[in-house]
Amino acid sequence: MSTSPSLHGFSLIAGERGAPGGRTFRAVNPAGGAALGPDFHEASLAEADRALELARKAQTPFAECAGETRAALLEAIAGGLEELGEALITRAGAETGLPAARLTGERARTCAQLRLFAALVREGSWVDARLDPALPERRPLPRPDVRRVLRPVGPVVVFGSSNFPLAFSTAGGDTASALAAGCPVVVKAHRAHPGTAELVGGVVARAVAAQGLPPGVFSQLHGEGATLGVALVRHPAAAAVGFTGSQAAGRALHEAAAARARPIPVFAEMSSLNPVFLLPGALRERGTEIAAGLLASFTLGVGQFCTKPGLVFAVTGEATEAFLQTLGAAVRAAPCGTMLTPGIREAFLGNQRRLLDTAGVSLWAGGTGEPAAERHEARPVVARTTAANFLAHPELAEEAFGPFTLVVEAPDLASLATCAAALAGQLTATLHGTPAELAAAGPLRQLLAERAGRLVVNGFPTGVEVCPAMHHGGPYPATTDSRFTSVGTAAILRFARPVCYQGFPDALLPPALQDANPLGLLRLVDGQPTREPLAARRAG
Amino acid sequence: MSTSPSLHGFSLIAGERGAPGGRTFRAVNPAGGAALGPDFHEASLAEADRALELARKAQTPFAECAGETRAALLEAIAGGLEELGEALITRAGAETGLPAARLTGERARTCAQLRLFAALVREGSWVDARLDPALPERRPLPRPDVRRVLRPVGPVVVFGSSNFPLAFSTAGGDTASALAAGCPVVVKAHRAHPGTAELVGGVVARAVAAQGLPPGVFSQLHGEGATLGVALVRHPAAAAVGFTGSQAAGRALHEAAAARARPIPVFAEMSSLNPVFLLPGALRERGTEIAAGLLASFTLGVGQFCTKPGLVFAVTGEATEAFLQTLGAAVRAAPCGTMLTPGIREAFLGNQRRLLDTAGVSLWAGGTGEPAAERHEARPVVARTTAANFLAHPELAEEAFGPFTLVVEAPDLASLATCAAALAGQLTATLHGTPAELAAAGPLRQLLAERAGRLVVNGFPTGVEVCPAMHHGGPYPATTDSRFTSVGTAAILRFARPVCYQGFPDALLPPALQDANPLGLLRLVDGQPTREPLAARRAG
Repeated sequence: MSTSPSLHGFSLIAGERGAPGGRTFRAVNPAGGAALGPDFHEASLAEADRALELARKAQTPFAECAGETRAALLEAIAGGLEELGEALITRAGAETGLPAARLTGERARTCAQLRLFAALVREGSWVDARLDPALPERRPLPRPDVRRVLRPVGPVVVFGSSNFPLAFSTAGGDTASALAAGCPVVVKAHRAHPGTAELVGGVVARAVAAQGLPPGVFSQLHGEGATLGVALVRHPAAAAVGFTGSQAAGRALHEAAAARARPIPVFAEMSSLNPVFLLPGALRERGTEIAAGLLASFTLGVGQFCTKPGLVFAVTGEATEAFLQTLGAAVRAAPCGTMLTPGIREAFLGNQRRLLDTAGVSLWAGGTGEPAAERHEARPVVARTTAANFLAHPELAEEAFGPFTLVVEAPDLASLATCAAALAGQLTATLHGTPAELAAAGPLRQLLAERAGRLVVNGFPTGVEVCPAMHHGGPYPATTDSRFTSVGTAAILRFARPVCYQGFPDALLPPALQDANPLGLLRLVDGQPTREPLAARRAG
Repeated sequence: MSTSPSLHGFSLIAGERGAPGGRTFRAVNPAGGAALGPDFHEASLAEADRALELARKAQTPFAECAGETRAALLEAIAGGLEELGEALITRAGAETGLPAARLTGERARTCAQLRLFAALVREGSWVDARLDPALPERRPLPRPDVRRVLRPVGPVVVFGSSNFPLAFSTAGGDTASALAAGCPVVVKAHRAHPGTAELVGGVVARAVAAQGLPPGVFSQLHGEGATLGVALVRHPAAAAVGFTGSQAAGRALHEAAAARARPIPVFAEMSSLNPVFLLPGALRERGTEIAAGLLASFTLGVGQFCTKPGLVFAVTGEATEAFLQTLGAAVRAAPCGTMLTPGIREAFLGNQRRLLDTAGVSLWAGGTGEPAAERHEARPVVARTTAANFLAHPELAEEAFGPFTLVVEAPDLASLATCAAALAGQLTATLHGTPAELAAAGPLRQLLAERAGRLVVNGFPTGVEVCPAMHHGGPYPATTDSRFTSVGTAAILRFARPVCYQGFPDALLPPALQDANPLGLLRLVDGQPTREPLAARRAG
């Protein structure tokens, strides 16, 4: 058993260590099966209450601080993550089994998204300032001066996710966008990587202190989702929830939040099959390339991506058969990989067995070598079935989180569309076709646009770009709220609500709404976008 | 009993009349107590299913139609409402007891908001198009071409509201914004004004047909909220719900929607006390004017506005006493008014009695004359209590929907802030003060901004301007989703979700996202707002 003397094993409540006394647990190295030191102490419900009460107290000063302060906070967190250097990569690797190159890339992504949000709030126009100045002469009634701006909703509870220990955990996209919006954050650390969470949480807490912000702006608690996590969601001070994980857990949080005396929104990113539609011409022209791309995509991170393609639809024929031969050969040469946790592996093996045992489904190809149980390995697997069988067994469209994909063969294009119409909400849907095929596939594109948050043409869904145009979301069960993204700058909109100011003296308005436009924002004045001060407009 | 030969009394399902056979009901003239003809036939659950299935079928063609078509549809509805002329005002007046002048004004507002949404969708930039073009040379990984745009969520269920038979009912703000977004609408007509609903619904259905749109774009059903209404919300094809009404009904719909196999959002605008804070200097300077304004505001529409001020906070002292004397005298001179329905009157009288019977609450002034039961009248009433008593009785902060307001006297400004901190979510909060008082009231303003959707200074909350900057919403229980407004152009955002297109050939992108910017939209390209085509930008 290895130990890490720099870790204390406690929750972090507004800059202070939690108390011992509760149950403890240890992280496990999935690649070796060894428990990792130190003991981590579960937070008590009193500590959960304290974290949220201090978040509530921090809410007003944090909401009022300048965009520049929030930008500096986010940049300080990014800098702090980089300064952790190899210690972070080593600990995260030990806790997740993920290779150093992947974790180094994930840290770069995490820092880039923190800096993207810093730039967004420094520029400031995301607050969607709208000004409709008074029209005292209007008939039959004068128009009052009406202005609105987005402001933070209040404390946000963030659940760390197992599969992105950096990018979707303690200082990941949910935390970055909530802090950017001006919301205090209380993180429920994922139990699979508590040491990583502690290292990152320390960086966030120090950055909060360095900016002179109240320590309640950030807390992080260790404990069980079903007890501690639900208690956080039910706490009266919680205003919103960010979650990435299983459909069962996301749904439970959604229902707990809806049943509160004051319901709050839960942004849960849960379950997606990410269907891929392969049209015959594309398979004829690029079948080998598509097979290689698909294999890389469904085995990326040992299949533990929310955008992993778990369903592949193609039309029976020579091109598809050749593609399947190529894919099969490639899969048989593919190595096993260590999954994130023993529990995830067990769930995956169960789901895979369930799918392979379904009538009409056959194993097409499995990866090389015997998966080592002590290293919690799984091997990539491709199965086959027919469209008719797929439509007869809706349970084939339930996610198996791991390196598994099911190829569904349809007799014709109309049958592909029937399969598309049977799909529930998805994060992504992908279409491979020649230019002529894509142009002719209007109805299929339309069906997919109605069911998915992101449509990919001649590419693969894994690898979610962090940019203003990204939408990482989708109709239920992909998420609990299809109108919001958890990746990209628009993710900040989950944690803000409009407040309208009517008849306010200029000096008492938030700076974003003042006549002079002191922040230089792009604003909607009388419905027209402009950066001009109001006086200049009036004079003009 | 009067009859109206032009009314048929049936639901309208995708342009066709519903079937007889179910229960029937009649509208009642609250001012006379007389039942109004004809009989209205409740829709069956099979008809509800048919309306939503036809809405689902209409979803794709309506989503794909040009913004210009939707604009023309909305304008045709506005024109049709105007063409109904006196018949509409007469019927709405008979069903609601509202005076013709109010209804004429409400129709003007309804038409103006239909035309505002027409202008919004004709211009088109509301779809928030974002383009992050490919960066093939980027290292370590190339960036794919990523673009996103808002698209309609699907069929929207709209509940007509009792208190705005035109502006928040069949063709009111929810319907206008849903149609503007490109969503088919199924209206559950309010039972208090079925004839008004039929007249307006006919206009909408004819406008849908005239634009060559599928008839499933609009249906309207008569029936009970608890049975038919809940069935509509539970229907698999429903994608979102717009509701204005009581907290109990809104909460029930919210819970029904959250418990669906596929949860959908409910935008319920429910309950608000709209507190008014009167600072001493303002009362000294303008006490008489404020008393007149408050009386007008809390009795507007016989107190049946969602923004009616139902709580007034002031600091004990001479100015407040003088204000109360003036207000009391004015209230005693104020006439009784007919309430919208017998049920609303009964609920109001019960709530008023409950509030007046609460320990420490005293009647301060009641309106002149004896309210006539046969005309379903109520008289305006002002009650008084102390801040200590208000804080000791949280039930004093529950809405009495009608012409009642409670003045709460606090010993000092700090106590006013304590009262503000005890308030739940509100649609509005109002502050009267001198410039110096307002400037010094930072903490109070902050408390109110955290609890309300709209802050009004030196004015009154009734009269909700329909404009881009309006926010008619607020934290629970004012609404079920504080991030969205039901009035103003931003209301359209309730019914749209982003879809992201990655790697698409230009010609297959929605026009809003094509390189040439054929719709001339303001778009976010590489995070920068511009109306330029992409090619010009790239060349530049």
